[in-house]
Amino acid sequence: MADAPGDGDAGEHGGSHGYITRKDDYLKRLSRIEGQARGLQRMVEQEKYCIDILTQVSAMTKALESVALGLLEEHLAHCVVEAARSGGPEADIKVKEASDAIARLVRS
Amino acid sequence: MADAPGDGDAGEHGGSHGYITRKDDYLKRLSRIEGQARGLQRMVEQEKYCIDILTQVSAMTKALESVALGLLEEHLAHCVVEAARSGGPEADIKVKEASDAIARLVRS
Amino acid sequence: MADAPGDGDAGEHGGSHGYITRKDDYLKRLSRIEGQARGLQRMVEQEKYCIDILTQVSAMTKALESVALGLLEEHLAHCVVEAARSGGPEADIKVKEASDAIARLVRS
Amino acid sequence: MADAPGDGDAGEHGGSHGYITRKDDYLKRLSRIEGQARGLQRMVEQEKYCIDILTQVSAMTKALESVALGLLEEHLAHCVVEAARSGGPEADIKVKEASDAIARLVRS
Repeated sequence: MADAPGDGDAGEHGGSHGYITRKDDYLKRLSRIEGQARGLQRMVEQEKYCIDILTQVSAMTKALESVALGLLEEHLAHCVVEAARSGGPEADIKVKEASDAIARLVRS
Repeated sequence: MADAPGDGDAGEHGGSHGYITRKDDYLKRLSRIEGQARGLQRMVEQEKYCIDILTQVSAMTKALESVALGLLEEHLAHCVVEAARSGGPEADIKVKEASDAIARLVRS
Repeated sequence: MADAPGDGDAGEHGGSHGYITRKDDYLKRLSRIEGQARGLQRMVEQEKYCIDILTQVSAMTKALESVALGLLEEHLAHCVVEAARSGGPEADIKVKEASDAIARLVRS
Repeated sequence: MADAPGDGDAGEHGGSHGYITRKDDYLKRLSRIEGQARGLQRMVEQEKYCIDILTQVSAMTKALESVALGLLEEHLAHCVVEAARSGGPEADIKVKEASDAIARLVRS
């Protein structure tokens, strides 16, 4: 299964999840999001104006959403397309799984 | 500024923003969200399965959303209601400001 | 009932819900949204390309969202502000009710 | 290309968009959504309570969202999977297109 990496063969499985080439980019964005979460704690700690805090929450939500959409696109481009190519029932499973993830994103 | 009352001196703005009573609760939730951001970095670092990462992103988005809705309710209950009570154009400004914040939340 | 003022008799509840002045605007927008729903049925009937249908659904969702945000702003500006001014527990009820409606919008 | 039907060969192209088997279901749901849009106009016409109108808007948005998620899943299961199987650059185009549609849904 392409999604069972970690057995010492990072080269082969490394790319299997599709985002390895942009891993650093995702890590940078997530670290910025972590910083936003810390910034929000400071704002609450200092009792900043509620509306300003909400503006930061919206910015952070958008940043997270954008990470999710990027990961999802890579997942479709790699996992789903590969599963489709290798034939068999795997493609159906991957499509169902991706659709459920999309539904969670749309509803969150 | 309507949002800088001054009921004594609980740290100048003390309580003025309405969420002081639940400040610890918000700090706890935001610190948990910060932890989720760190967890996501670990997942990307270890190249976890994309769908599992997306599930975590959805959970984190929901947690953030819930913080935002809580802060907004307190803002309406305190700042907006107080501004309405003190009369004058301040209430209109507060309503416009809150509506813009709501629009950002709905669209993010 | 705070939302049943009675400034004479503009249709019993006239103006009471705050959006009467822009009623025609809302009716026009909702009628356009109804037209979009009919357009979508035609697209499905004719088996138009899925992505084009989804684009229309997004446009329709945005139009609906925008109606909701407009109604909500008027509700805050009228009902909530009036309830705050008339004092008593009514303001708390209105704030809770509005916050629940906002939560439904944010989560839908 | 599978997504250019309408040239007199409904059998072949008919199924190409993937939702033909559930076409009646989608038409029924969209017709219900059209009814909700009409109901909203009646509510505004009769100046129903704002919060009740917002509740209906949320229900309608959820219904639309659910139609979109259904169409999207079928699109992935059919168009995207087929494009992947037939090889060539078509799969990339389909994935990009689907990802853009997902981004519009998530952000609307």
